[in-house]
Amino acid sequence: MISDNLSFIPLGGVGTVTKNMYVYEYQNQILLVDCGLGFADETMLGVDLLLPDISYLLQAVKSGKRIIGMGISHGHEDHMGGLPFILPQLPEFPIFGTPFTAAMANKKLQEFGIINKVQPVAFGESKEIKLGPFALHFIRVTHSVPDTSHIFIKTPIGNFYHGSDYKFDNTPFDNQASDFAGIQKAGDAGVLALMTDCLGSEREGITPSEQGMEKNFLEVMQKATGKVIVTTYSSHINRLNQIVWATEKAGRRICFVGRSLIHAIEVAKMEKKIFIPKGMEAQIDDLKFIKPSGLVLLVAGSQGQENSALTRIVDGVHKDVQLASNDVVIFSSDTIPGNEVLVNSVIDEIARQEITVYYSGISHDFHVSGHASQDEMVKLLSLVRPKYIVPISGNYRHMAAYKRLAKKHGFPNSNILLAQNGQEYLFSQQGLRPGKRYPIKTVYVDQISGEEIEDFVLLDRQRLSTEGIVVIMAEVDEDTGKLFQDPDIIARGFSAADTNAVRKIVSRSVRNAFQRNQKQLKNSVFIRKLIRDIAEREISQKLKRKPLILPVVVEM
Amino acid sequence: MISDNLSFIPLGGVGTVTKNMYVYEYQNQILLVDCGLGFADETMLGVDLLLPDISYLLQAVKSGKRIIGMGISHGHEDHMGGLPFILPQLPEFPIFGTPFTAAMANKKLQEFGIINKVQPVAFGESKEIKLGPFALHFIRVTHSVPDTSHIFIKTPIGNFYHGSDYKFDNTPFDNQASDFAGIQKAGDAGVLALMTDCLGSEREGITPSEQGMEKNFLEVMQKATGKVIVTTYSSHINRLNQIVWATEKAGRRICFVGRSLIHAIEVAKMEKKIFIPKGMEAQIDDLKFIKPSGLVLLVAGSQGQENSALTRIVDGVHKDVQLASNDVVIFSSDTIPGNEVLVNSVIDEIARQEITVYYSGISHDFHVSGHASQDEMVKLLSLVRPKYIVPISGNYRHMAAYKRLAKKHGFPNSNILLAQNGQEYLFSQQGLRPGKRYPIKTVYVDQISGEEIEDFVLLDRQRLSTEGIVVIMAEVDEDTGKLFQDPDIIARGFSAADTNAVRKIVSRSVRNAFQRNQKQLKNSVFIRKLIRDIAEREISQKLKRKPLILPVVVEM
Repeated sequence: MISDNLSFIPLGGVGTVTKNMYVYEYQNQILLVDCGLGFADETMLGVDLLLPDISYLLQAVKSGKRIIGMGISHGHEDHMGGLPFILPQLPEFPIFGTPFTAAMANKKLQEFGIINKVQPVAFGESKEIKLGPFALHFIRVTHSVPDTSHIFIKTPIGNFYHGSDYKFDNTPFDNQASDFAGIQKAGDAGVLALMTDCLGSEREGITPSEQGMEKNFLEVMQKATGKVIVTTYSSHINRLNQIVWATEKAGRRICFVGRSLIHAIEVAKMEKKIFIPKGMEAQIDDLKFIKPSGLVLLVAGSQGQENSALTRIVDGVHKDVQLASNDVVIFSSDTIPGNEVLVNSVIDEIARQEITVYYSGISHDFHVSGHASQDEMVKLLSLVRPKYIVPISGNYRHMAAYKRLAKKHGFPNSNILLAQNGQEYLFSQQGLRPGKRYPIKTVYVDQISGEEIEDFVLLDRQRLSTEGIVVIMAEVDEDTGKLFQDPDIIARGFSAADTNAVRKIVSRSVRNAFQRNQKQLKNSVFIRKLIRDIAEREISQKLKRKPLILPVVVEM
Repeated sequence: MISDNLSFIPLGGVGTVTKNMYVYEYQNQILLVDCGLGFADETMLGVDLLLPDISYLLQAVKSGKRIIGMGISHGHEDHMGGLPFILPQLPEFPIFGTPFTAAMANKKLQEFGIINKVQPVAFGESKEIKLGPFALHFIRVTHSVPDTSHIFIKTPIGNFYHGSDYKFDNTPFDNQASDFAGIQKAGDAGVLALMTDCLGSEREGITPSEQGMEKNFLEVMQKATGKVIVTTYSSHINRLNQIVWATEKAGRRICFVGRSLIHAIEVAKMEKKIFIPKGMEAQIDDLKFIKPSGLVLLVAGSQGQENSALTRIVDGVHKDVQLASNDVVIFSSDTIPGNEVLVNSVIDEIARQEITVYYSGISHDFHVSGHASQDEMVKLLSLVRPKYIVPISGNYRHMAAYKRLAKKHGFPNSNILLAQNGQEYLFSQQGLRPGKRYPIKTVYVDQISGEEIEDFVLLDRQRLSTEGIVVIMAEVDEDTGKLFQDPDIIARGFSAADTNAVRKIVSRSVRNAFQRNQKQLKNSVFIRKLIRDIAEREISQKLKRKPLILPVVVEM
């Protein structure tokens, strides 16, 4: 008897909010959901972004398993931004998303020369896609980007409800409310497991609707005597619409500043998810002809990114936009954990210039979360009625908070799974049990080259930055194995006093070592190792540091 | 006519919450207030702490000015932690603080071999200290450490009210309420300028009292079937007392874990600011004999510091304390901005182990701020009635929020000063005007050596970490100036592909340069410069990177 299991493996997205990518595997056929990237925090040196680790998939393909398709839940970077980096590494397979999702993903892929890869599919059971043993369809939910979906997946073992990022906004900007009937119907069909967004599980009640924020923007725009500068997440099309509407009512013109934002607006226009009245949009070259009191700038850089349009404007180095004392700056966003130092420093710099700035620390008028709070989570649970629950897309504290919530609402402890990336979970008619554990590494993408880098490069960088580097150059007589002269020593990342100390310590100890070991010193590999070992030991003992040590041996 | 001015110069503490140090100068005599350190955030590589820049004082002393004394407002690191680093650089002068403040500062100085430097002075006008043209006395206020003071400073130009960190807690743990009568009396005497804590200026209303938190701790201690582990700021004696009281009522024993915490407890015991019933305190070696349900651990490391007791316990590498599944961990603290990544990762790791953890994201039961909110600020303003206001000890956004608040309460815009570090402000009977601007540099203290390091070392480190390093070793014929062979190239901090690219690019370009320039290449300084310039240009053009380049020339 072969085992009849559905194997679920998160490759990223549990224990982290981002890097969402999930494997659903049945008899050597693999369905993927999402392919997101992660954002580097302030402690990751020279790293631009993170990717899910697809080692499992590479190995699976090699061993004859087949990837039969991928569904994408919505058009956010942490759910589809990994595509251009990951697709080239895998064999061809079809990819599906709702129309706006597909458009956002294809726009992104286009920058990397991949054209129309993601196929748009309408919402609803009637648009079900059959992929080998799987069948899936998209169910509409609300979030901060249009056409966000939950994915209902039928398998021979049972049905899975992949409920990634959502909130239940009853008054969404585009009148496209969540499809409660569709969710209920999915629940009626019987759901073996609900994979679900848990990011907001620490918050009681209901996340407020986007609606109503428009009037807050309008009020500021009507009062301000200078420019109004608003920054938000570039993909937050719902918010962008409200800002555009407020701008129109305030009789101002709007200009979009920053590449990521301009891209998002292009897609939204193309997909008819944003409408900007004729003549209202100003180009950046026109700004000098428009009086500031007639202007709204929508600017990328809500996370304080060092090279973003906002940071350059605030630092006074943007070539087209300058801040004036009667301008108003609005952060229509929250700080993503890990970006606090950067965001706060931008806000402080605006405050230092005595320019009015609104941010979440002093006003909740300009941002609400795109994620469900506890009451919405309970509502989803009551509609889907799963046997098992797997909180995803959150840090462990959010997963733990979700588990507390689900238990409070009667779900047994043993049916709520706090998953780990790389762990296989085997669902069968008999129940749920852990399968194999695949090692998961953190995959970093280099800030400059855009290439994947390995852990050891990041470790090198961290060591370089905290511990410094010591280059030791020894000129050795090829014939006798004697040092020609004291080694040359270059130390970087040390204070002047420590640099001197390093020089003295290393110089003396290397000289002594050569005197003691003269005979064996004719092999340059051995000499390098000797120098490195001695220098490491001495510097560690005397200075309590562990710099990167590079011995250079010149045989003469 | 000589100008009769009181010169006020912040050396640190405006635009930053920490590094508090202020100069009050009258006719070449300098009174200092506070001498605090700053905390490195996650972006400061290998930096342990920051110090105020005392270049101004060093120069002043050299030019014949005299430091006649220092007052310390309270026993927190960001107001007195700079003493052991800064005192050795300055001539002798007397230092004063209230009894607990003096004890905390002296304990700190003792670690550096400086004994009983800070003189304890009781609160109140009758204990006024005369220092040349100045007279000062301490006024009791409440905060999160006992004996916190505001300092009233009389000068020939007028009176200054130095109102650093405070809140108005009407039910403080030690029944030592703020001395409102004393503050009012100071106001009655006429106050030219109020320097004031502005950190809480974004918060409406009143900061809750510490009181009442005890019962929240007690409730957890009574329910938990395992150990209760609490972490808070080590110097937060008020909080420590409440935890001790709750522990006593819960019939548990308490153990203090972590060096900074043990030090603070020692001082608090000595100064009779904490009382631990006989037999209640357990030593760490006894823990194995006490059942977990009878135990509370008070543990240092509320900011997720990598080597703290808490982090080591959570990571399972603490030699005396292990986490068990029925333990409860309580963060009785807020995350100081800049530490989010570290703190969140500790919380997530506890949640991953499915151990109950309380933190400010899910519960406000275990921490309140030690700083005044808006209503308390207005109360201080109404008692002190200053002509000028200088918000201090906050970031610029807090200073700006304070300014909005003061304006709302009738203070004219021009009388509220958003100061800058290193800027001299001249107070006279005619008014207030800016004086000279002294350059202020950021002073970092190295994590390992404990020595001050300069900006350029930090920049070196940042460059090393983000851009990598390339060592180029060229063997040159002393006589002909020819390269013996292709240069040896070592690149670190690059991906494998980039390392290869660097090798190729540099090798080829250095070789070409030698071929073109053969004649002049007999000066090793020139050769080094040539190699560096070429390598920099080529790597920057081809790889868009700017690594640190170390040319090494061997003349043979």
